[in-house]
Amino acid sequence: MTTRICVFEGDDAAPEAVTATCGLLTSLDVDLEFTTPHVGGHADALRAGTLPEELRSAIESADTVLFGAGSDLHATILRYLRWEYGGGTYANLRPVCHFEGATSPLSDPEGIDYLVVRENLEGLYVRAEGDLPEAAGTLDATSVGGTSLKDLGPGQYALRVTSEAHTRRFARFACETAADRVEETQPIRLTCATKSNVLPGTDGLFERTVERTAAEYDQLTYEHLHVDDAAQRLVTDPRRFDVIVTPNFAGDVLSDVGAGTTGGLGVAPSGCYGDDVAYFEPVHGSAPDIAGEGSINPTATLLSAAMLLEYVGAPAEATRLVRAIEATYRDGASLTPDQGGTATTEAFTAAVTDHL
Amino acid sequence: MTTRICVFEGDDAAPEAVTATCGLLTSLDVDLEFTTPHVGGHADALRAGTLPEELRSAIESADTVLFGAGSDLHATILRYLRWEYGGGTYANLRPVCHFEGATSPLSDPEGIDYLVVRENLEGLYVRAEGDLPEAAGTLDATSVGGTSLKDLGPGQYALRVTSEAHTRRFARFACETAADRVEETQPIRLTCATKSNVLPGTDGLFERTVERTAAEYDQLTYEHLHVDDAAQRLVTDPRRFDVIVTPNFAGDVLSDVGAGTTGGLGVAPSGCYGDDVAYFEPVHGSAPDIAGEGSINPTATLLSAAMLLEYVGAPAEATRLVRAIEATYRDGASLTPDQGGTATTEAFTAAVTDHL
Ligand SMILES: CC(C)[C@H](C(=O)O)[C@@H](O)C(=O)O
Ligand SMILES: CC(C)[C@H](C(=O)O)[C@@H](O)C(=O)O
Repeated sequence: MTTRICVFEGDDAAPEAVTATCGLLTSLDVDLEFTTPHVGGHADALRAGTLPEELRSAIESADTVLFGAGSDLHATILRYLRWEYGGGTYANLRPVCHFEGATSPLSDPEGIDYLVVRENLEGLYVRAEGDLPEAAGTLDATSVGGTSLKDLGPGQYALRVTSEAHTRRFARFACETAADRVEETQPIRLTCATKSNVLPGTDGLFERTVERTAAEYDQLTYEHLHVDDAAQRLVTDPRRFDVIVTPNFAGDVLSDVGAGTTGGLGVAPSGCYGDDVAYFEPVHGSAPDIAGEGSINPTATLLSAAMLLEYVGAPAEATRLVRAIEATYRDGASLTPDQGGTATTEAFTAAVTDHL
Repeated sequence: MTTRICVFEGDDAAPEAVTATCGLLTSLDVDLEFTTPHVGGHADALRAGTLPEELRSAIESADTVLFGAGSDLHATILRYLRWEYGGGTYANLRPVCHFEGATSPLSDPEGIDYLVVRENLEGLYVRAEGDLPEAAGTLDATSVGGTSLKDLGPGQYALRVTSEAHTRRFARFACETAADRVEETQPIRLTCATKSNVLPGTDGLFERTVERTAAEYDQLTYEHLHVDDAAQRLVTDPRRFDVIVTPNFAGDVLSDVGAGTTGGLGVAPSGCYGDDVAYFEPVHGSAPDIAGEGSINPTATLLSAAMLLEYVGAPAEATRLVRAIEATYRDGASLTPDQGGTATTEAFTAAVTDHL
């Protein structure tokens, strides 16, 4: 059966990584068909925040989406993919893994291998902001520096949201994903990272929901860390982590810290999953500073594609791709400039293909 | 003139660090008088969230406060010190500095030396949380995964607040502090770190206010980074930073990442400043796991005390203390277990005293 992939190439240097990745995917033993909608032709609509019907149907008629980092135009597409596609892609998986041979600022990055499961729709990302007096009038609950919220004067508020039903399905997805990582008899540590000490309402609900769900899985050892503490340990003791389950904004930051310890954003993949849909994107931006140089590291996009392969039911080919990337780093002769090498995007990808 | 310091010793291992620090302070050339209110005697009131008059007047009648990390009882005192004392201690300074000889997970921590200036009252810390339907009814602005906020069902909201007047005084404090760090002709880079791409209302206001204020200082070079990007660079390129100005929650996390790169929480000091008041506390918690062992690293408390000395008008003694701590790390013979040594708290402090 053919798997149809809708590909957004992105802007600046991103298309170089996406093209290399799609090229490599055709040498695998899996039947893929690519559709690459033309984003530039819809600039006006996208800039106005509307997703044109043509792009919408390209997404909807495909089995999954590979998304290259893009400029403001792509923000509209990204919003659709996260908040609307299939009812919302509510769980963002961000593996953090150090490949032998990859650069790292740590003196001992060996064996770092954990997964950040980031809540992907709610928290501070509901984009409900407004003028402060409005909120203060209706929601006054406390005071700031002796001043009641009402008396703070002009300013802005943002709403942070944790809904019960959504958090339950997210926690279920996170625990299922964690349980899937259990190999042999070794239990998996599931670390829930929140600021429930400061936010007992929203983060308290998040923490309790994750804890209660995790308790249903014998193979999972549950713990809770405050986000600041977790962030610090990602740097000082990264090997203690297996799976980190965390709200939206915290997940954004923690996964970037993790990427920083294992080779930078050039190697950090991600996948966003809903109930019956998923899309895949590198964590990095569009890298305008190196656009056109053919030097972008395609690893993040390649690893995102490996997550895609696993999702579409080709786990053996996914593993084959990851092993080839691993071998390319171990070998070390064809690394891109961000990894201290001099290889082009093309040369790196050719080396991965050779290692397949 | 005598400077009166109100000392809260904290719980678990914290008193060991505080006692050592107060002992050392008496060997400096500055006239200090310590009051140490008895917290345990007020357990019921503190647990109920009220600050007893006796503690309040001990704080108010002193010139400044040295605060050791404590349990839930101390949370009530901390809330008073942050949100009420002198109208609120609205700016939290957290220096991140690597001392030669201190442990670090980075292969090259040499020369890391920047300051995190964290907004300390607002953001997510206004503690205005409640049931979701209430907020959704009055503040509905958007939708989550195709579902309107109103239809999310039960859950919790939290308010994130950025008020104009407060942000202006905070930005002024941050820029003045940054300008004070300018040495000779080298300009200082001021990095504002927000998520204004996701929170154009609250973080947009914060970013614009800091940018506009920084523009008044010739010696400051302004830039803006998104928090996730900044977090990653704290690990991959820490020497690029001079001063980071950032909202409350982001500052909590970024400063802990910074601490992780430079020796851990055992060496991370902080000071919280209001218009006419300030209090000083190590970033770390009360370390219950090592309570009673006499092995806690007092560096974070000693460095917080150095910030206190600077605040009370004894900058020469502050510098003398920091230099002695530096020399103790460089020498390396008397480091505590968290730094790979075997010295007790007392032995480390004695070594610092010898280096004065
Ligand atoms: C571009 C931005 C909205 C986004 C986010 O914060 O989610 C990015 O940082 C990411 O992590 O994908
Ligand atoms: C204890 C907690 C409320 C606090 C905070 O988040 O501010 C702590 O992490 C700190 O940074 O002082």
